[in-house]
Amino acid sequence: MTVKIYGFTPAVCPQRVMLCLIEKGIAFEIIPVDLQKLEQKQPNYLSKQPFGQVPYVVDGDFELYESRAIVRYYAAKYADKGPDLFGRTLEEKALVDQWLDIEAINFNPLVFSIVFNLHVLPQSGATGNAAEVEAAVEKLGAVLDIYDRQLSKTKYLAGDRFTLADLTHIPATMYVVGKCGLSQLIDDREHVEAWWKDITNRPAVKRVISMVDSNALSFSP
Amino acid sequence: MTVKIYGFTPAVCPQRVMLCLIEKGIAFEIIPVDLQKLEQKQPNYLSKQPFGQVPYVVDGDFELYESRAIVRYYAAKYADKGPDLFGRTLEEKALVDQWLDIEAINFNPLVFSIVFNLHVLPQSGATGNAAEVEAAVEKLGAVLDIYDRQLSKTKYLAGDRFTLADLTHIPATMYVVGKCGLSQLIDDREHVEAWWKDITNRPAVKRVISMVDSNALSFSP
Repeated sequence: MTVKIYGFTPAVCPQRVMLCLIEKGIAFEIIPVDLQKLEQKQPNYLSKQPFGQVPYVVDGDFELYESRAIVRYYAAKYADKGPDLFGRTLEEKALVDQWLDIEAINFNPLVFSIVFNLHVLPQSGATGNAAEVEAAVEKLGAVLDIYDRQLSKTKYLAGDRFTLADLTHIPATMYVVGKCGLSQLIDDREHVEAWWKDITNRPAVKRVISMVDSNALSFSP
Repeated sequence: MTVKIYGFTPAVCPQRVMLCLIEKGIAFEIIPVDLQKLEQKQPNYLSKQPFGQVPYVVDGDFELYESRAIVRYYAAKYADKGPDLFGRTLEEKALVDQWLDIEAINFNPLVFSIVFNLHVLPQSGATGNAAEVEAAVEKLGAVLDIYDRQLSKTKYLAGDRFTLADLTHIPATMYVVGKCGLSQLIDDREHVEAWWKDITNRPAVKRVISMVDSNALSFSP
Protein backbone atom coordinates (compact mmCIF):
# COMPACT_ATOMS: atom_id res chain seq x y z
CA MET A 1 0.00 0.00 0.00
CA THR A 2 1.58 3.30 -1.10
CA VAL A 3 1.29 6.06 1.48
CA LYS A 4 -0.05 9.34 0.11
CA ILE A 5 1.58 12.45 1.57
CA TYR A 6 -0.35 15.65 0.93
CA GLY A 7 2.36 18.28 1.21
CA PHE A 8 4.99 20.54 -0.26
CA THR A 9 8.44 19.02 -0.59
CA PRO A 10 10.42 22.21 0.24
CA ALA A 11 8.61 22.40 3.60
CA VAL A 12 10.18 20.99 6.73
CA CYS A 13 7.27 18.95 8.13
CA PRO A 14 6.60 16.92 4.95
CA GLN A 15 10.37 16.28 4.76
CA ARG A 16 10.27 14.84 8.30
CA VAL A 17 7.68 12.29 7.12
CA MET A 18 9.56 11.56 3.86
CA LEU A 19 12.75 10.89 5.83
CA CYS A 20 11.00 8.46 8.15
CA LEU A 21 9.35 6.52 5.32
CA ILE A 22 12.60 6.30 3.34
CA GLU A 23 14.46 5.05 6.45
CA LYS A 24 11.77 2.39 6.82
CA GLY A 25 11.67 1.52 3.11
CA ILE A 26 7.97 2.36 2.70
CA ALA A 27 6.74 3.48 -0.72
CA PHE A 28 4.99 6.84 -0.89
CA GLU A 29 3.77 9.42 -3.31
CA ILE A 30 3.46 13.14 -2.74
CA ILE A 31 0.25 14.91 -3.66
CA PRO A 32 1.49 18.49 -4.08
CA VAL A 33 -0.06 21.25 -1.99
CA ASP A 34 1.51 24.53 -3.07
CA LEU A 35 2.10 26.72 -0.01
CA GLN A 36 3.10 29.65 -2.23
CA LYS A 37 -0.39 29.57 -3.73
CA LEU A 38 -1.91 29.07 -0.23
CA GLU A 39 -3.51 25.81 -1.36
CA GLN A 40 -3.32 24.62 2.26
CA LYS A 41 -5.93 27.24 3.19
CA GLN A 42 -8.49 26.12 0.58
CA PRO A 43 -11.74 24.46 1.80
CA ASN A 44 -10.85 21.19 0.10
CA TYR A 45 -7.58 20.94 2.03
CA LEU A 46 -9.05 22.26 5.29
CA SER A 47 -11.68 19.51 5.24
CA LYS A 48 -8.76 17.07 5.76
CA GLN A 49 -6.33 19.20 7.81
CA PRO A 50 -8.41 21.89 9.53
CA PHE A 51 -5.39 23.87 10.80
CA GLY A 52 -4.22 24.51 7.22
CA GLN A 53 -0.78 22.99 7.73
CA VAL A 54 1.16 20.39 5.74
CA PRO A 55 1.36 17.44 5.63
CA TYR A 56 -1.38 14.95 6.16
CA VAL A 57 -1.12 11.34 5.09
CA VAL A 58 -3.63 8.88 3.72
CA ASP A 59 -2.80 5.21 4.19
CA GLY A 60 -5.66 3.02 2.99
CA ASP A 61 -8.65 4.32 4.92
CA PHE A 62 -6.54 5.84 7.71
CA GLU A 63 -5.77 9.56 7.71
CA LEU A 64 -3.38 11.37 10.03
CA TYR A 65 -1.73 14.75 10.42
CA GLU A 66 0.93 16.39 12.63
CA SER A 67 4.30 15.26 11.28
CA ARG A 68 5.66 14.04 14.62
CA ALA A 69 2.55 11.92 15.21
CA ILE A 70 2.98 10.51 11.70
CA VAL A 71 6.61 9.49 12.24
CA ARG A 72 5.74 7.97 15.63
CA TYR A 73 3.02 5.94 13.88
CA TYR A 74 5.28 4.58 11.15
CA ALA A 75 8.16 3.90 13.55
CA ALA A 76 5.76 1.78 15.64
CA LYS A 77 3.93 0.17 12.71
CA TYR A 78 7.16 -0.91 11.01
CA ALA A 79 9.24 -1.44 14.15
CA ASP A 80 10.90 -4.53 12.64
CA LYS A 81 11.54 -3.08 9.19
CA GLY A 82 14.72 -1.06 8.64
CA PRO A 83 16.38 0.71 11.58
CA ASP A 84 14.51 0.70 14.90
CA LEU A 85 13.66 4.39 15.17
CA PHE A 86 11.75 4.25 18.44
CA GLY A 87 13.18 1.92 21.05
CA ARG A 88 12.68 -1.58 22.38
CA THR A 89 11.60 -0.85 25.94
CA LEU A 90 9.01 1.59 27.23
CA GLU A 91 11.84 3.60 28.77
CA GLU A 92 13.77 3.83 25.49
CA LYS A 93 10.57 4.94 23.73
CA ALA A 94 9.88 7.49 26.45
CA LEU A 95 13.27 9.12 25.93
CA VAL A 96 12.61 9.31 22.18
CA ASP A 97 9.25 10.94 22.97
CA GLN A 98 11.01 13.34 25.32
CA TRP A 99 13.38 14.51 22.57
CA LEU A 100 10.59 14.71 19.99
CA ASP A 101 8.84 17.11 22.36
CA ILE A 102 12.04 19.07 23.07
CA GLU A 103 12.45 19.55 19.32
CA ALA A 104 8.82 20.64 18.90
CA ILE A 105 8.78 22.98 21.90
CA ASN A 106 12.32 24.24 22.57
CA PHE A 107 14.05 23.95 19.19
CA ASN A 108 11.56 24.32 16.36
CA PRO A 109 10.05 27.74 17.23
CA LEU A 110 13.55 29.30 17.20
CA VAL A 111 14.54 27.61 13.95
CA PHE A 112 11.20 28.58 12.41
CA SER A 113 11.82 32.25 13.23
CA ILE A 114 15.32 32.10 11.70
CA VAL A 115 14.28 30.31 8.51
CA PHE A 116 11.18 32.47 8.07
CA ASN A 117 13.07 35.75 8.38
CA LEU A 118 16.27 34.76 6.55
CA HIS A 119 14.86 32.53 3.81
CA VAL A 120 11.06 32.47 3.37
CA LEU A 121 10.43 36.24 3.48
CA PRO A 122 13.42 37.23 1.27
CA GLN A 123 12.35 34.57 -1.24
CA SER A 124 9.05 36.40 -1.70
CA GLY A 125 10.77 39.80 -1.91
CA ALA A 126 10.08 40.89 1.67
CA THR A 127 12.66 41.80 4.31
CA GLY A 128 13.07 39.66 7.42
CA ASN A 129 13.20 41.10 10.92
CA ALA A 130 16.91 41.23 11.85
CA ALA A 131 16.29 41.76 15.58
CA GLU A 132 14.07 38.68 15.72
CA VAL A 133 16.76 36.62 13.98
CA GLU A 134 19.42 37.84 16.37
CA ALA A 135 17.35 36.93 19.42
CA ALA A 136 16.47 33.51 18.00
CA VAL A 137 20.10 32.72 17.08
CA GLU A 138 21.22 33.56 20.62
CA LYS A 139 18.52 31.37 22.18
CA LEU A 140 19.19 28.55 19.72
CA GLY A 141 22.86 28.67 20.68
CA ALA A 142 21.90 28.10 24.32
CA VAL A 143 19.68 25.16 23.31
CA LEU A 144 22.51 23.68 21.25
CA ASP A 145 24.84 24.00 24.23
CA ILE A 146 22.47 21.66 26.07
CA TYR A 147 22.45 19.30 23.07
CA ASP A 148 26.27 19.38 23.05
CA ARG A 149 26.40 18.27 26.67
CA GLN A 150 23.91 15.46 25.97
CA LEU A 151 25.89 14.36 22.91
CA SER A 152 29.09 14.25 24.96
CA LYS A 153 27.40 11.49 27.00
CA THR A 154 25.45 9.55 24.33
CA LYS A 155 26.23 9.26 20.60
CA TYR A 156 22.65 10.21 19.67
CA LEU A 157 20.14 12.36 21.52
CA ALA A 158 18.07 9.59 23.08
CA GLY A 159 20.90 7.08 23.55
CA ASP A 160 23.35 5.09 21.50
CA ARG A 161 21.16 4.49 18.46
CA PHE A 162 19.84 6.81 15.75
CA THR A 163 16.11 7.32 16.41
CA LEU A 164 13.23 9.70 15.68
CA ALA A 165 14.80 11.97 18.31
CA ASP A 166 17.61 12.74 15.84
CA LEU A 167 15.60 12.41 12.63
CA THR A 168 13.05 15.03 13.70
CA HIS A 169 15.77 17.71 13.81
CA ILE A 170 17.19 17.14 10.33
CA PRO A 171 14.93 19.03 7.89
CA ALA A 172 14.81 22.40 9.65
CA THR A 173 18.48 22.26 10.64
CA MET A 174 19.42 21.70 6.98
CA TYR A 175 17.83 25.09 6.22
CA VAL A 176 19.63 26.80 9.10
CA VAL A 177 22.99 25.40 7.98
CA GLY A 178 22.34 25.77 4.23
CA LYS A 179 20.05 28.55 3.01
CA CYS A 180 20.47 30.63 6.18
CA GLY A 181 24.28 30.32 6.24
CA LEU A 182 24.44 29.67 9.98
CA SER A 183 26.60 26.53 9.97
CA GLN A 184 28.71 27.95 12.80
CA LEU A 185 25.84 27.17 15.18
CA ILE A 186 26.68 23.52 14.54
CA ASP A 187 30.42 23.73 13.84
CA ASP A 188 31.23 25.67 17.01
CA ARG A 189 30.06 22.73 19.14
CA GLU A 190 32.25 19.65 19.01
CA HIS A 191 29.69 16.96 19.81
CA VAL A 192 26.85 18.60 17.89
CA GLU A 193 29.14 18.88 14.86
CA ALA A 194 30.08 15.17 14.97
CA TRP A 195 26.41 14.22 15.44
CA TRP A 196 25.29 16.42 12.56
CA LYS A 197 27.92 14.95 10.19
CA ASP A 198 26.88 11.45 11.19
CA ILE A 199 23.12 11.85 10.87
CA THR A 200 23.20 13.81 7.61
CA ASN A 201 25.45 11.16 6.07
CA ARG A 202 22.57 8.69 6.08
CA PRO A 203 21.33 7.56 2.65
CA ALA A 204 17.76 8.56 3.54
CA VAL A 205 18.84 12.18 4.05
CA LYS A 206 20.61 12.25 0.68
CA ARG A 207 17.54 10.76 -0.94
CA VAL A 208 15.25 13.44 0.53
CA ILE A 209 17.60 16.19 -0.66
CA SER A 210 17.70 14.75 -4.17
CA MET A 211 13.90 14.32 -4.25
CA VAL A 212 13.37 17.94 -3.18
CA ASP A 213 15.98 19.27 -5.64
CA SER A 214 14.54 17.32 -8.57
CA ASN A 215 10.92 17.80 -7.49
CA ALA A 216 10.43 14.02 -7.51
CA LEU A 217 7.01 13.05 -6.22
CA SER A 218 7.33 9.36 -5.47
CA PHE A 219 9.58 6.93 -3.66
CA SER A 220 9.85 3.17 -4.01
CA PRO A 221 12.35 1.23 -1.91
CA MET B 1 7.19 2.39 43.75
CA THR B 2 6.17 5.99 44.42
CA VAL B 3 6.86 8.31 41.50
CA LYS B 4 8.69 11.50 42.43
CA ILE B 5 7.54 14.61 40.56
CA TYR B 6 9.94 17.54 40.79
CA GLY B 7 7.67 20.47 40.13
CA PHE B 8 5.43 23.29 41.26
CA THR B 9 1.79 22.35 41.76
CA PRO B 10 0.30 25.67 40.50
CA ALA B 11 2.08 25.14 37.15
CA VAL B 12 0.29 23.59 34.23
CA CYS B 13 2.84 20.96 33.14
CA PRO B 14 3.22 19.29 36.55
CA GLN B 15 -0.59 19.26 36.80
CA ARG B 16 -0.74 17.36 33.48
CA VAL B 17 1.43 14.64 35.02
CA MET B 18 -0.50 14.62 38.32
CA LEU B 19 -3.78 14.20 36.42
CA CYS B 20 -2.45 11.25 34.47
CA LEU B 21 -1.07 9.47 37.55
CA ILE B 22 -4.29 10.01 39.51
CA GLU B 23 -6.37 8.66 36.56
CA LYS B 24 -4.12 5.60 36.59
CA GLY B 25 -4.12 5.20 40.38
CA ILE B 26 -0.32 5.53 40.71
CA ALA B 27 1.10 6.90 43.96
CA PHE B 28 3.33 9.95 43.71
CA GLU B 29 4.96 12.61 45.78
CA ILE B 30 5.83 16.14 44.73
CA ILE B 31 9.29 17.51 45.43
CA PRO B 32 8.61 21.26 45.38
CA VAL B 33 10.55 23.46 42.95
CA ASP B 34 9.48 27.04 43.55
CA LEU B 35 9.21 28.87 40.22
CA GLN B 36 8.67 32.17 42.02
CA LYS B 37 12.13 31.77 43.57
CA LEU B 38 13.52 30.59 40.18
CA GLU B 39 14.62 27.31 41.75
CA GLN B 40 14.22 25.69 38.31
CA LYS B 41 17.20 27.75 37.08
CA GLN B 42 19.58 26.61 39.82
CA PRO B 43 22.52 24.32 38.88
CA ASN B 44 21.15 21.47 40.98
CA TYR B 45 17.87 21.47 39.07
CA LEU B 46 19.49 22.11 35.68
CA SER B 47 21.66 19.02 36.12
CA LYS B 48 18.42 17.01 35.91
CA GLN B 49 16.31 19.18 33.56
CA PRO B 50 18.76 21.29 31.53
CA PHE B 51 16.07 23.52 29.98
CA GLY B 52 15.04 24.79 33.42
CA GLN B 53 11.41 23.75 33.07
CA VAL B 54 9.12 21.76 35.39
CA PRO B 55 8.47 18.92 35.88
CA TYR B 56 10.79 16.01 35.72
CA VAL B 57 10.01 12.65 37.24
CA VAL B 58 12.13 10.03 38.95
CA ASP B 59 10.75 6.50 38.97
CA GLY B 60 13.23 4.08 40.46
CA ASP B 61 16.37 4.65 38.41
CA PHE B 62 14.49 6.08 35.42
CA GLU B 63 14.30 9.85 34.93
CA LEU B 64 12.19 11.67 32.36
CA TYR B 65 11.07 15.18 31.51
CA GLU B 66 8.67 16.90 29.06
CA SER B 67 5.19 16.48 30.53
CA ARG B 68 3.63 15.04 27.35
CA ALA B 69 6.36 12.42 27.09
CA ILE B 70 5.76 11.57 30.76
CA VAL B 71 2.01 11.06 30.32
CA ARG B 72 2.61 8.98 27.17
CA TYR B 73 5.00 6.81 29.21
CA TYR B 74 2.60 6.18 32.07
CA ALA B 75 -0.38 5.63 29.76
CA ALA B 76 1.65 2.91 27.99
CA LYS B 77 3.24 1.45 31.12
CA TYR B 78 -0.09 1.11 32.91
CA ALA B 79 -2.27 0.49 29.85
CA ASP B 80 -4.36 -2.09 31.74
CA LYS B 81 -4.75 -0.12 34.97
CA GLY B 82 -7.57 2.41 35.19
CA PRO B 83 -8.98 4.00 32.04
CA ASP B 84 -7.16 3.28 28.77
CA LEU B 85 -5.75 6.73 28.03
CA PHE B 86 -3.92 5.87 24.82
CA GLY B 87 -5.74 3.46 22.54
CA ARG B 88 -5.78 -0.21 21.67
CA THR B 89 -4.64 -0.14 18.05
CA LEU B 90 -1.72 1.70 16.49
CA GLU B 91 -4.23 3.89 14.66
CA GLU B 92 -6.06 4.84 17.86
CA LYS B 93 -2.72 5.68 19.49
CA ALA B 94 -1.67 7.71 16.46
CA LEU B 95 -4.78 9.89 16.74
CA VAL B 96 -4.05 10.47 20.43
CA ASP B 97 -0.49 11.45 19.47
CA GLN B 98 -1.89 13.76 16.79
CA TRP B 99 -4.03 15.62 19.35
CA LEU B 100 -1.22 15.75 21.91
CA ASP B 101 0.86 17.53 19.25
CA ILE B 102 -2.02 19.84 18.26
CA GLU B 103 -2.31 20.85 21.91
CA ALA B 104 1.45 21.42 22.21
CA ILE B 105 1.81 23.33 18.94
CA ASN B 106 -1.51 25.01 18.07
CA PHE B 107 -3.22 25.42 21.44
CA ASN B 108 -0.67 25.79 24.23
CA PRO B 109 1.33 28.80 22.91
CA LEU B 110 -1.90 30.85 22.72
CA VAL B 111 -3.09 29.78 26.14
CA PHE B 112 0.37 30.43 27.58
CA SER B 113 0.29 34.01 26.27
CA ILE B 114 -3.17 34.59 27.77
CA VAL B 115 -2.37 33.09 31.18
CA PHE B 116 1.02 34.79 31.36
CA ASN B 117 -0.37 38.26 30.62
CA LEU B 118 -3.67 38.01 32.52
CA HIS B 119 -2.58 35.97 35.54
CA VAL B 120 1.17 35.42 36.02
CA LEU B 121 2.38 38.99 35.42
CA PRO B 122 -0.41 40.71 37.45
CA GLN B 123 0.27 38.27 40.30
CA SER B 124 3.81 39.63 40.55
CA GLY B 125 2.62 43.25 40.30
CA ALA B 126 3.42 43.74 36.60
CA THR B 127 0.97 44.68 33.83
CA GLY B 128 0.23 42.24 31.03
CA ASN B 129 0.27 43.20 27.37
CA ALA B 130 -3.38 43.76 26.39
CA ALA B 131 -2.72 43.70 22.63
CA GLU B 132 -0.99 40.32 22.92
CA VAL B 133 -3.93 38.94 24.89
CA GLU B 134 -6.43 40.23 22.35
CA ALA B 135 -4.54 38.62 19.45
CA ALA B 136 -4.16 35.31 21.33
CA VAL B 137 -7.86 35.21 22.31
CA GLU B 138 -8.88 35.73 18.69
CA LYS B 139 -6.56 32.97 17.44
CA LEU B 140 -7.62 30.64 20.26
CA GLY B 141 -11.25 31.18 19.26
CA ALA B 142 -10.42 30.00 15.74
CA VAL B 143 -8.65 26.92 17.14
CA LEU B 144 -11.65 26.16 19.38
CA ASP B 145 -13.95 26.44 16.34
CA ILE B 146 -11.97 23.54 14.86
CA TYR B 147 -12.28 21.63 18.14
CA ASP B 148 -16.03 22.29 18.12
CA ARG B 149 -16.39 20.73 14.66
CA GLN B 150 -14.35 17.71 15.75
CA LEU B 151 -16.42 17.34 18.92
CA SER B 152 -19.62 17.45 16.85
CA LYS B 153 -18.39 14.22 15.22
CA THR B 154 -16.74 12.39 18.15
CA LYS B 155 -17.51 12.70 21.87
CA TYR B 156 -13.82 13.20 22.71
CA LEU B 157 -11.02 14.69 20.62
CA ALA B 158 -9.42 11.45 19.46
CA GLY B 159 -12.61 9.37 19.29
CA ASP B 160 -15.31 8.07 21.57
CA ARG B 161 -13.20 7.54 24.67
CA PHE B 162 -11.51 9.97 27.08
CA THR B 163 -7.75 9.83 26.39
CA LEU B 164 -4.54 11.80 26.82
CA ALA B 165 -5.78 13.93 23.89
CA ASP B 166 -8.39 15.42 26.22
CA LEU B 167 -6.42 15.22 29.46
CA THR B 168 -3.52 17.26 28.09
CA HIS B 169 -5.81 20.29 27.59
CA ILE B 170 -7.26 20.40 31.10
CA PRO B 171 -4.71 22.24 33.30
CA ALA B 172 -4.11 25.29 31.10
CA THR B 173 -7.77 25.58 30.10
CA MET B 174 -8.75 25.64 33.78
CA TYR B 175 -6.65 28.82 34.12
CA VAL B 176 -8.21 30.39 31.01
CA VAL B 177 -11.72 29.67 32.29
CA GLY B 178 -10.99 30.42 35.94
CA LYS B 179 -8.29 32.97 36.83
CA CYS B 180 -8.43 34.66 33.40
CA GLY B 181 -12.25 34.92 33.35
CA LEU B 182 -12.55 33.81 29.73
CA SER B 183 -15.15 31.07 30.13
CA GLN B 184 -17.06 32.41 27.12
CA LEU B 185 -14.35 30.88 24.88
CA ILE B 186 -15.73 27.51 26.00
CA ASP B 187 -19.39 28.38 26.65
CA ASP B 188 -19.93 29.98 23.23
CA ARG B 189 -19.24 26.67 21.50
CA GLU B 190 -21.88 23.99 22.03
CA HIS B 191 -19.76 20.88 21.62
CA VAL B 192 -16.67 22.30 23.32
CA GLU B 193 -18.86 23.32 26.28
CA ALA B 194 -20.35 19.81 26.64
CA TRP B 195 -16.88 18.25 26.34
CA TRP B 196 -15.41 20.62 28.91
CA LYS B 197 -18.21 19.89 31.43
CA ASP B 198 -17.72 16.17 30.91
CA ILE B 199 -13.94 16.04 31.23
CA THR B 200 -13.68 18.41 34.19
CA ASN B 201 -16.29 16.37 36.04
CA ARG B 202 -13.82 13.50 36.39
CA PRO B 203 -12.74 12.66 39.96
CA ALA B 204 -9.06 12.99 38.96
CA VAL B 205 -9.59 16.63 37.96
CA LYS B 206 -11.29 17.40 41.27
CA ARG B 207 -8.46 15.69 43.12
CA VAL B 208 -5.81 17.78 41.33
CA ILE B 209 -7.70 20.99 42.12
CA SER B 210 -7.98 20.05 45.79
CA MET B 211 -4.30 19.07 45.96
CA VAL B 212 -3.23 22.39 44.43
CA ASP B 213 -5.57 24.42 46.66
CA SER B 214 -4.42 22.67 49.84
CA ASN B 215 -0.78 22.45 48.74
CA ALA B 216 -0.87 18.68 49.25
CA LEU B 217 2.35 17.03 48.14
CA SER B 218 1.47 13.37 47.89
CA PHE B 219 -1.13 11.09 46.38
CA SER B 220 -1.99 7.49 47.24
CA PRO B 221 -4.77 5.72 45.36
